[in-house]
Amino acid sequence: MLTLYGNLESGNVYKVRLLLAQLDIPHRRIDVNQVRNEPRSEAFRAVNPIGKVPALRLEDGRVLSESGAILFYLAQGSPFWPDNAWDQAQVLRWMFFEQYSHEPYIAVNRYLLRFGQDPGAAAQRIADNAVKGNQALETMERHLGGHEWFGADRYSVADIALYAYTHVAHEGGFDLTAYPSVTAWLSRARARPGHIGLMQETSTEPVWRLGESL
Amino acid sequence: MLTLYGNLESGNVYKVRLLLAQLDIPHRRIDVNQVRNEPRSEAFRAVNPIGKVPALRLEDGRVLSESGAILFYLAQGSPFWPDNAWDQAQVLRWMFFEQYSHEPYIAVNRYLLRFGQDPGAAAQRIADNAVKGNQALETMERHLGGHEWFGADRYSVADIALYAYTHVAHEGGFDLTAYPSVTAWLSRARARPGHIGLMQETSTEPVWRLGESL
Repeated sequence: MLTLYGNLESGNVYKVRLLLAQLDIPHRRIDVNQVRNEPRSEAFRAVNPIGKVPALRLEDGRVLSESGAILFYLAQGSPFWPDNAWDQAQVLRWMFFEQYSHEPYIAVNRYLLRFGQDPGAAAQRIADNAVKGNQALETMERHLGGHEWFGADRYSVADIALYAYTHVAHEGGFDLTAYPSVTAWLSRARARPGHIGLMQETSTEPVWRLGESL
Repeated sequence: MLTLYGNLESGNVYKVRLLLAQLDIPHRRIDVNQVRNEPRSEAFRAVNPIGKVPALRLEDGRVLSESGAILFYLAQGSPFWPDNAWDQAQVLRWMFFEQYSHEPYIAVNRYLLRFGQDPGAAAQRIADNAVKGNQALETMERHLGGHEWFGADRYSVADIALYAYTHVAHEGGFDLTAYPSVTAWLSRARARPGHIGLMQETSTEPVWRLGESL
């Protein structure tokens, strides 16, 4: 059985959980608490030396990190990964866009405002991120003016990658009502078979906490 | 013939040029000058609405952006892209790592120090980036302690993606002598057939400037 390391609140972990749910793949989750800084702990670094969630452990013990790489791996041979190189490249294009031009602003502002120790001290950073995050949302809005999905002509891991932090962008201070095409796309994504919410458990086994023996 | 949009100084453009050179693929380059802010110009946004280099235009007019997606597309069927899903996922893992945990610190400090209007005003940002950039170099050093290459057991687009900004990290104030395995890996990469330097032109046609008609 696959083992997923990560916490429910993390959008990067949610991407993998959403795909696992939509592919109906049994797995267990081991909770790695970000607020308690467990990703940086010795116990987790023994699994993933980079100290970041999510990490996926296969039954044979091999471990894969980086949410985008995990989505790619799990989606092979499924409808969530297109079957021609051009569409595949477009899917990856949007996944790289998400990691480089979207997540560092939209997810980070959500983190600073929801979980940060002192949002006041981070005011300038939050303001700078708001500008860049809105640029990312404008890019998405423009694309969705002519397309139903990102990357391919159907729902794919690109949509899963972008859904994760876009659907909670308001928690980072972003006003999604200014982006009607993005809002409509979020609704279409939510209506896909097997969709789960961010805080909805997908583990088909009891959830372990990091440090509990397996 | 393929058309590549971008300037020579950009590491993200260099990734694509290096692969094109090593695959011996004829192409022409259209220069998009970053210091003159041409990526954000109307003329370039007509090609790539996101306003970022590199962008690759196929003969049929389709355009692909994001260096990682372009590397993926061009490497299909070549020795630079492994042939099994696990190694492919590992290659992508390092490419996502590069874009999320390496480039925003190492490339950005190089940009601020070399091309920035006022490095003094950016001193705090440069110092913060130095910490994160060194973490990325430590992650690479640890991996290279047990592996010859990133991602697969041979030179791949993951190595190309990481080479681009690592080999000029000293221009961003990073001391590579502290990372002997990284330094040795840079030498191995430089010794690969078809390797070209950052400022070495690869265009097999005269270089056009943005705005010149084609």
